[in-house]
Amino acid sequence: MLRGIDPLLSPDLLHLLASMGHGDDLALVDANHPAETIAGQTRSRHLIRLPGLAMGRVARAVLSVLPIDDFEPDPLRRMEVVGNPGVLPTVQEEVLAEMRAALGPAARLAGIERFAFYEAAKKSFGVVQIGDPRPYGCFLLRKGVIAGEPG
Amino acid sequence: MLRGIDPLLSPDLLHLLASMGHGDDLALVDANHPAETIAGQTRSRHLIRLPGLAMGRVARAVLSVLPIDDFEPDPLRRMEVVGNPGVLPTVQEEVLAEMRAALGPAARLAGIERFAFYEAAKKSFGVVQIGDPRPYGCFLLRKGVIAGEPG
Repeated sequence: MLRGIDPLLSPDLLHLLASMGHGDDLALVDANHPAETIAGQTRSRHLIRLPGLAMGRVARAVLSVLPIDDFEPDPLRRMEVVGNPGVLPTVQEEVLAEMRAALGPAARLAGIERFAFYEAAKKSFGVVQIGDPRPYGCFLLRKGVIAGEPG
Repeated sequence: MLRGIDPLLSPDLLHLLASMGHGDDLALVDANHPAETIAGQTRSRHLIRLPGLAMGRVARAVLSVLPIDDFEPDPLRRMEVVGNPGVLPTVQEEVLAEMRAALGPAARLAGIERFAFYEAAKKSFGVVQIGDPRPYGCFLLRKGVIAGEPG
């Protein structure tokens, strides 16, 4: 436990988030996702597991510290429903609500087709698998920058 | 870089601080301390190096997230000056000022004789060596608790 840091951000998850840089994607995936297979091909090869939690709650914790890239139009992405790519299931609506709470009402989730998501996730920095069993709870969040002065 | 987290808290240092639990000590030591030798005997065996920084600045970063133990009278300790145990050198005064800023004006630094400090540091969770060359920049900070509800 640390002061001012969401207690879902475990030592390993904090380390992963702090190790990412500008343009690196974080994959948040649901309980059915082939997370071990995907994570083994990511930059860090790390898979962090958070069993028993809802995806929106974890998104809130991650967004409490992770800056989101504002250099490009779609730093936030979701896996599209097969056969119904325009529909957001409840789990995606919940995560989008957290994104809007953290980033403002203009935040949006771009869709990616299922197999394209797998390929994009393999190019991510690392994977967090949440024990949320709802299908299509799969997201990519691209890290942004925090500018400042040294010291 | 992460939102709301002091940028001196590197991935490895965040991981170390978040991994500590109630009653674990963190050793902050100066540039001349035998940190490698001491760290190898600590619980985590981790030595994290922060070159080029002043001890007070690092103490401020650590205290921005680390809760301090309030179950005992002296969770904050310093190495005593050899031959002059009651005097606080400037580096210790600077760290004490950061402690009082973070924890309140009652915060105090208990003294430990040099070789007793080495033995206590070996029992700490891990060591952070700061590139501050001023002698007696050696401290032990005992982690406290953050109570709450699950979820």
